Amino acid sequence: MQAEIITIGDELLIGQVIDTNSVWLGQLLFKNNISVFKKTAIKDLESEIVAQLDLSLAQSDFIVITGGLGPTKDDITKITLAKYFKMGWRVDVDVLKQLETFFADRGRVMMEANKMQAELPSGCETLGNEWGTAPGMLFRVGEKIIVSLPGVPFEMKNIFEQKVMPIILEHFELPKLHYKTLVTFNIPESLLAKQIEDIENDLPQNIGLAYLPNFNIVRLRLTGKEEHGVNIEQQIDGFAKRLTERIGDAVLAETDQSLVEIAADLLKLKNKTLSIAESCTGGYLSHIITSLSGSSSFFVGSVISYSNSVKHHQLGVESTLFETVGPVSEPVVEQMCSGVRERLQTDYAIAISGIAGPDGGSAEKPVGTVVIGISNSEQHFVKKYYFIGDRSGVISRASNMAMFLLIQELKKI
Amino acid sequence: MQAEIITIGDELLIGQVIDTNSVWLGQLLFKNNISVFKKTAIKDLESEIVAQLDLSLAQSDFIVITGGLGPTKDDITKITLAKYFKMGWRVDVDVLKQLETFFADRGRVMMEANKMQAELPSGCETLGNEWGTAPGMLFRVGEKIIVSLPGVPFEMKNIFEQKVMPIILEHFELPKLHYKTLVTFNIPESLLAKQIEDIENDLPQNIGLAYLPNFNIVRLRLTGKEEHGVNIEQQIDGFAKRLTERIGDAVLAETDQSLVEIAADLLKLKNKTLSIAESCTGGYLSHIITSLSGSSSFFVGSVISYSNSVKHHQLGVESTLFETVGPVSEPVVEQMCSGVRERLQTDYAIAISGIAGPDGGSAEKPVGTVVIGISNSEQHFVKKYYFIGDRSGVISRASNMAMFLLIQELKKI
Repeated sequence: MQAEIITIGDELLIGQVIDTNSVWLGQLLFKNNISVFKKTAIKDLESEIVAQLDLSLAQSDFIVITGGLGPTKDDITKITLAKYFKMGWRVDVDVLKQLETFFADRGRVMMEANKMQAELPSGCETLGNEWGTAPGMLFRVGEKIIVSLPGVPFEMKNIFEQKVMPIILEHFELPKLHYKTLVTFNIPESLLAKQIEDIENDLPQNIGLAYLPNFNIVRLRLTGKEEHGVNIEQQIDGFAKRLTERIGDAVLAETDQSLVEIAADLLKLKNKTLSIAESCTGGYLSHIITSLSGSSSFFVGSVISYSNSVKHHQLGVESTLFETVGPVSEPVVEQMCSGVRERLQTDYAIAISGIAGPDGGSAEKPVGTVVIGISNSEQHFVKKYYFIGDRSGVISRASNMAMFLLIQELKKI
Repeated sequence: MQAEIITIGDELLIGQVIDTNSVWLGQLLFKNNISVFKKTAIKDLESEIVAQLDLSLAQSDFIVITGGLGPTKDDITKITLAKYFKMGWRVDVDVLKQLETFFADRGRVMMEANKMQAELPSGCETLGNEWGTAPGMLFRVGEKIIVSLPGVPFEMKNIFEQKVMPIILEHFELPKLHYKTLVTFNIPESLLAKQIEDIENDLPQNIGLAYLPNFNIVRLRLTGKEEHGVNIEQQIDGFAKRLTERIGDAVLAETDQSLVEIAADLLKLKNKTLSIAESCTGGYLSHIITSLSGSSSFFVGSVISYSNSVKHHQLGVESTLFETVGPVSEPVVEQMCSGVRERLQTDYAIAISGIAGPDGGSAEKPVGTVVIGISNSEQHFVKKYYFIGDRSGVISRASNMAMFLLIQELKKI
């Protein structure tokens, strides 16, 4: 079964909005063994939408369209779909009722443009939107299914999970694919490939291996198709085991998790708490940790010590160090680390100070210089790194490295 | 001139990697009056790449391909392009030399797979990669230009800015388009459309108006094509002025900036410093502020007070309040705000405490309840909000609202 995603909206093409919808859809469909084989972002233009529908219907069995369902004039998805499928219009009374409640609850007056959101192409099935004003629509063309959903991420996700997914799982007979992902850290892709070359050559036709690099992480993904008379899961597990033995400590996890998720699981498992002192990463590390729901069970808090004054007053770093060795140095990071751990009373602490750029570098400490420290009550570890990349790249690499160091420490206990 | 972006890689289709490359490319091209009319993400499959090249070359004058240039077996972009354009192979000695330096600098051994990165299709122009091992390639088909770039974001960006952009600006005659964007806050799209309906109807054929909603922000973008005998800039400015007068205070900026950029500019202009106490937003607000280079001139630091103990010990919130009114309450946020402002010695402070979900809600304080405070030495403002959405949606909306409140305060002085 081939699935395809079409996102509609000029804002996606000019980079005004980051398309997180198709990322989320890709993940969810992948988990359900539905392979998205193409994603296309097109303009709010009838001719483009029609051309894309022609193309997609010729290739795919399931098409998800997001965007272009708002109440304003530049949103033309609904009207174009009605034309394309040669349908008239109907008023969906349930949607109309829900819209009235939606506006009444918010003390807002419902306007003509809002009422029109209850008008839908006559032949589509309504996918009610609990969290917004634009309902989703489902069209059937023979055995193919096309859904059109609003572009607002949480509205789209809610409709897709609640309404679309059950229909898809019921309607399509899905292939039985099996996956296993190994998360490796800090080995360059080419070195890794060399290291496991013979194992890769041993893979049978029905098992594929993909390298998925992202910053200093490379994910190795084994994908196998179920075939008659073969225990594919066992086969994949066997290869995963060979790879893990070969690569060793650099394999951080044998499930497809982010470094933060791996660290979070270890903190929960070992019942340890964490605090952070961030300088150059400016809150990013705390943010990715607190993006995980349930992080409050181990994450206590952070001090973002952007200025030296905050490093001194809130973390207890000796002021003289800023002049003698500078804020991006092992002694300062060590004091930041013990300072935050003692003041926030946690088992572990991370401290990061560096130069994310583009300004602030020097010959001695170029942009990308980052000192990272990890400590618990018994010991501390501090090391200087040089990361390449732009500002956001340095921030990401430093945060990844800090998570890696914490994972290594937690695996020891 | 039509431009198109093709991203290659299974990881983009299964949501393992967020495609920030095409976002960045879309923005840069848009700023240079090059309109990206389509973005397609396809699999690492020769048949898919070939089919897409056929389609794209029929429609577009300029095609940017990213991804699939790594040294491992699953990267097939280069070999597919060579086949597609019926080219032989050459070794680029400059690339080979640069690769040798690259590996020597890092104390790594260069392997066969790495050396092969200096082998390029005979008819392509090399786009040297200073920051990585996969060079970019430029192909010409008649007047059309196709570039293939590595998928690693900072390598791609560097090659595109340094090598590709100058060639494109020289090669193509670009249309003269003019844009003006108004950033509006907290007026729903449909209400806004109603409010400016008559102005929108007055727009001439050569000026378009787009609504670009993202959380509680709606950007209004006027786009005009230069035509003979018409001063399009003046015309657009006239309409922007009418829109601004009509919408009033909800227009936060008349340039295409994020709320954080608007707030940052005001802090710099008014020479004021800022500190933040974050609870439910967990570092996100500090992160988006420190993502701006130069933010250290006004941003001093933050306390991420995830636990009540940190709210008490690091910010001075009275412990009794946690039991009487709870951590998500006006009195606690007021004390967090004055606490962080006094301890970090800044002119302004922001404090946020709330329930981002999915757990932790109650009948009285449902998920999405967020209290936000802003203070300076003379006054403070604290208010409770209810945001809809999932965890990341609540975090984003709360951060946007905090930036909006700060902008309002800063505009008063």
